[in-house]
Amino acid sequence: MSLLLSAPGWDLAAWAGRISKRAPGRRLQVAPDRFSGPEAVDYVLTWNVPHGLLSTLPNLKVIFWLGAGVDHLLADPNLPDVPIVRVVDPSLTRRMTEWVSLQVLMHHRAALTYLDQQRRVEWRSHNHPMARDVRVGVMGLGELGRDAARMLTMLGYQVAGWSRTAKTIDGIDCFAGADGLAAFLARTDILVSLLPLTPQTRGILDYGLFSGLARDGVLGGPVLINGGRGKSQVEADILRALDDGVLIGASLDVFETEPLAADSPLWAHPRVIVTPHVAAESDPTDLVDYVLTQIETFEAGGALKNRVDRTRGY
Amino acid sequence: MSLLLSAPGWDLAAWAGRISKRAPGRRLQVAPDRFSGPEAVDYVLTWNVPHGLLSTLPNLKVIFWLGAGVDHLLADPNLPDVPIVRVVDPSLTRRMTEWVSLQVLMHHRAALTYLDQQRRVEWRSHNHPMARDVRVGVMGLGELGRDAARMLTMLGYQVAGWSRTAKTIDGIDCFAGADGLAAFLARTDILVSLLPLTPQTRGILDYGLFSGLARDGVLGGPVLINGGRGKSQVEADILRALDDGVLIGASLDVFETEPLAADSPLWAHPRVIVTPHVAAESDPTDLVDYVLTQIETFEAGGALKNRVDRTRGY
Repeated sequence: MSLLLSAPGWDLAAWAGRISKRAPGRRLQVAPDRFSGPEAVDYVLTWNVPHGLLSTLPNLKVIFWLGAGVDHLLADPNLPDVPIVRVVDPSLTRRMTEWVSLQVLMHHRAALTYLDQQRRVEWRSHNHPMARDVRVGVMGLGELGRDAARMLTMLGYQVAGWSRTAKTIDGIDCFAGADGLAAFLARTDILVSLLPLTPQTRGILDYGLFSGLARDGVLGGPVLINGGRGKSQVEADILRALDDGVLIGASLDVFETEPLAADSPLWAHPRVIVTPHVAAESDPTDLVDYVLTQIETFEAGGALKNRVDRTRGY
Repeated sequence: MSLLLSAPGWDLAAWAGRISKRAPGRRLQVAPDRFSGPEAVDYVLTWNVPHGLLSTLPNLKVIFWLGAGVDHLLADPNLPDVPIVRVVDPSLTRRMTEWVSLQVLMHHRAALTYLDQQRRVEWRSHNHPMARDVRVGVMGLGELGRDAARMLTMLGYQVAGWSRTAKTIDGIDCFAGADGLAAFLARTDILVSLLPLTPQTRGILDYGLFSGLARDGVLGGPVLINGGRGKSQVEADILRALDDGVLIGASLDVFETEPLAADSPLWAHPRVIVTPHVAAESDPTDLVDYVLTQIETFEAGGALKNRVDRTRGY
């Protein structure tokens, strides 16, 4: 039962190496360079597979998606009707939590201000609120959002969460649905989005939403952190909000179009931190083991875990 | 029983306000502007009180030190022989842990590299190790060191600690004394110093020590983070180590002389993060309450907590 690996833009050598080591008996093809037998492909391991490629695989049994959000995949008009399995990998979750913790701390502890002072050789201290007085709100309470919320709580922040359907997490105030959004925003100084991209979340991070964030917080204004999906944000609205003080800072790892266009004003904005979609990169070792274990279970007649619900979109 | 507040360079209005609110019946003098009755001073609340001032207070009963390290105080040749109480305040500890977590994450997640790419409008990702593969070593296992070590463990790092005398902390490999130092350094990728300044720790962070840090780590070389005392570090050695690759980065909140001299090459070094002694600022609300509670206990015949041992130096 053989495999195809397709992830445009990734360095796939480490992935192929890990697969060959972990499952030396399986045939492995790598698109586009080492891909000559579409009829031999039983399983695809992919991130951002080109639309149309999957429909050329007559014997495809399962699609394993190596990234977080599956919106690109579900947008393929010729998507085969086989199970889609999302990677739910503790290492990916922990990487996202590292990035979120770093960004929250950078804004809370004025890292950009101090780095700027350093460039100007200026020794000047500022009063910082305690973490316990800073209210962080996490939108999206899947694996990523829950883990980030827990770590932010341990760092001392007042953490609340918002999700489409009601959830319960120890120590975290949970809001849900359209009805809960206004109250969630009104108590939030730092907004962290880890939302999947669905028709409901496309463009949700817009000027109207930013305007609902807390104005009375100890940071002097609200901050946006998006580690989720770029198409959830309206970049023109982020810039407008930063320029008129509706937001005082932002950290963005994802963008409406990636790579971020060279002429985007986000690059040079003094209150914006841009990272190039690196918050939670997939790690070959853990993820290959995860996928191959699932394949072995599947071939032994067991059920696949973490299947994507195509209607729900994640 | 009246109070004197002295902390050169601090904005003391919030402190005075909190004291007046919490203990309206006590006379409060503030040096140097509102200080006319030295004989009336029973208690001093201070950070970096000028040498010689304390010996002019004939009725001084207790010195409350509002910062972390008391080395400046103990260096006063005319230091009165009264109890010295250190502030051991959870809020100060948590602030230091925030700063340490931020600096460790910045180096681990290559924040300076991404900020530099952002300035150059460059979209490029780098492989980052997982936190679980990064070995952090904390020197100094007092209140600050223990709390930071615990948080770094929760963030996923492999954490070890080193202290003068042997300590035991759950989940953290503890090394001690001169005999344990080499083994501690040899397993450390990111060295965090939260040491007090004593004759034994003066200048301890030198080229020889840096040379003992791990060379085989996943970050490509060792990093120094000093949130403890400036005189524990040899800045010429830090620069030499950065320039020849013995260190690949540093975060410094404290310096041999503060403010850091404008002509120090540390300001402009691309691998150094300079913050102006702001890692763990004292918060008036909590600390005033802490000090006044201790004074009330003392006046009722109770024992003072967290007294400094002058011989030990902390």
